[in-house]
Amino acid sequence: MKTSPRRVCLLLTAIAATVTSTAVLHAQSFDSLQTAGSPLVLKAQGSFYIGGERIEQTQVELGGMGADGHITIHQMYVRYMVPQRGEDNWPVVMIHGATLTGKTWETTPDGRMGWDEYFVRKGRAVYIPDQVGRGRSGFDQSVYNNVRGGSIPPAKQPVFLRFSDEAAWPNFRIGPKAGVAFEDSQSPVEAAPEFSKQAVPDISLGLPQPSPTIKALSDLSAKLNGAVLISHSQSGSFPLDAALLNPDVAKGLVLVEPGACPTRYTDDQIRTLARIPILILFGDHRDNATGLPMFPTWQGRFEVCQAFVARLKAAGGQPELLDPTTRGIRGNTHMMMQDKNSLQIADLILDWIDTRASKRSVRK
Amino acid sequence: MKTSPRRVCLLLTAIAATVTSTAVLHAQSFDSLQTAGSPLVLKAQGSFYIGGERIEQTQVELGGMGADGHITIHQMYVRYMVPQRGEDNWPVVMIHGATLTGKTWETTPDGRMGWDEYFVRKGRAVYIPDQVGRGRSGFDQSVYNNVRGGSIPPAKQPVFLRFSDEAAWPNFRIGPKAGVAFEDSQSPVEAAPEFSKQAVPDISLGLPQPSPTIKALSDLSAKLNGAVLISHSQSGSFPLDAALLNPDVAKGLVLVEPGACPTRYTDDQIRTLARIPILILFGDHRDNATGLPMFPTWQGRFEVCQAFVARLKAAGGQPELLDPTTRGIRGNTHMMMQDKNSLQIADLILDWIDTRASKRSVRK
Repeated sequence: MKTSPRRVCLLLTAIAATVTSTAVLHAQSFDSLQTAGSPLVLKAQGSFYIGGERIEQTQVELGGMGADGHITIHQMYVRYMVPQRGEDNWPVVMIHGATLTGKTWETTPDGRMGWDEYFVRKGRAVYIPDQVGRGRSGFDQSVYNNVRGGSIPPAKQPVFLRFSDEAAWPNFRIGPKAGVAFEDSQSPVEAAPEFSKQAVPDISLGLPQPSPTIKALSDLSAKLNGAVLISHSQSGSFPLDAALLNPDVAKGLVLVEPGACPTRYTDDQIRTLARIPILILFGDHRDNATGLPMFPTWQGRFEVCQAFVARLKAAGGQPELLDPTTRGIRGNTHMMMQDKNSLQIADLILDWIDTRASKRSVRK
Repeated sequence: MKTSPRRVCLLLTAIAATVTSTAVLHAQSFDSLQTAGSPLVLKAQGSFYIGGERIEQTQVELGGMGADGHITIHQMYVRYMVPQRGEDNWPVVMIHGATLTGKTWETTPDGRMGWDEYFVRKGRAVYIPDQVGRGRSGFDQSVYNNVRGGSIPPAKQPVFLRFSDEAAWPNFRIGPKAGVAFEDSQSPVEAAPEFSKQAVPDISLGLPQPSPTIKALSDLSAKLNGAVLISHSQSGSFPLDAALLNPDVAKGLVLVEPGACPTRYTDDQIRTLARIPILILFGDHRDNATGLPMFPTWQGRFEVCQAFVARLKAAGGQPELLDPTTRGIRGNTHMMMQDKNSLQIADLILDWIDTRASKRSVRK
């Protein structure tokens, strides 16, 4: 079905007008779930936590049930799937962006296979964390309960960040303004209400800095004896920061639409990163106004990454800044892992990994 | 290895003394991960959301980035795995308890297979939600940001509940007091630090009542054209409440250590529930002092469930209240899906389902 902007606008107006019960909202996603043509054969699947600190909190901080005591905070949840074959491929870790969780990489809003399963089917063990502070990783609730109890002023309570659907639409470059899609948009716009459900409150501004997620990613890579790290948006620079903690286990770094390419690294750090295969991808329509006054355009972010790539190259690196539009692939949004051509984008990454990252030596 | 209370106490003291870096904390879980002897063959896996309301919030409520706009709240995240065979078995939905997430049913703290995978290997499609308000389901952050902004007094901010490790230990009946396990405890106490990581802040007291999770479970059962619902602890009565919303799709209700068996149902509601197969399970050491002054003992909760079962039987039902100790199975805790004999307990449930729940008619 060809989707014109006008059609999309009408469609979304219709959805907004009819979504008065949860029945309508949930009907779409479940019914759209697709089943692959062949079974998924896993050597293993499961979940675990990486990192965390055990700390003591007061009864008030714990919410009032029971006495003072210890809990664990800042641990990172990780779900994994390991395929039957592909031992000579590095495991792949996929880290989501702001206000989202590991759901980013799972089934798309319109029910298609996520990158998690696709990469497994391509012979990669896949590890999907929830960033520290979100999803199944939890967060440190103590400050909120202390504010409630009156011992901390409300203004010191960290903000819980959300993006409205109206702000996300142009910022994620689905179209020029909420409800209007670009003619060539790859976004599954009919499932926009399902994408809206993926968002959760983001406590990033209340976390220790640097985010504990970075150390956890480095530790996870070490546990895996080497991994390819794929980030997205707000987690954009996390693979770089994790690699600097332990370069030997960073076998490839893939930054999907990073929120920022760092300008803060020393020349020593750049030399370290220059030895690691690095791929940075951006989608289309990067000059779209973001609709968020404090946010630069994605073209602006792209250009900062161009400078970052130039700096790595000057230090002897071979990073790649990939713009799919130069290969005739148009209309990709900020959520390219969920776009209608998401598997085409995945193939670009898989090809790059196979070309640029080393192979894993397997003990027979 | 035989684990005496004294040994456990020494062990935990040693852990507490040495856990000063995340390296120590994370070392255990990843290294303990076990791989099954045979591959897991899935017809499908993925995730989706059920329910949710789209509402408008202010810039302050959204955390300050962008103008007023719409977000979705009170949706329920669900991950699923469907086996290659077992079409005549009802799908199974597993709902976690307080301060926990769907992680409850995944890999155990000491790295063994979770009930999620075990049930799939036994030919059941498995659906694992995060309760509305927790994990990947997110929560409504607006009140916290309004308190921060000064428009709502701090005392009106809903509490985020956590249980300390010291409170959870006796309440979950691992032993008489924190760090001391019962001689016969089935808890994988060596992995207690890993269990501690599973907990997240619980906003249940800030949710609309009844919890939106109940309607979402009913809607999910309807989408599945019938399901067996397994609850745990705080979600104990959710399957009963969901079944009352749509009895035809409730094919079996399994309450694992329910926090409470309801006394509020009308005779009409009891008659409806009497037509549905219901299993209620409790573990051992139920008369242990909970360590939480406002909490009854689990023996007290067991006795309320005895009365509930008697009421269902008087209405013609055939509910079962299962106490594994009467079958010589000793030492099970509140977290029996993670106990060392977790698969033995799972088999009791699977046997009950096969005996008491109907078979699904399969269109060929």
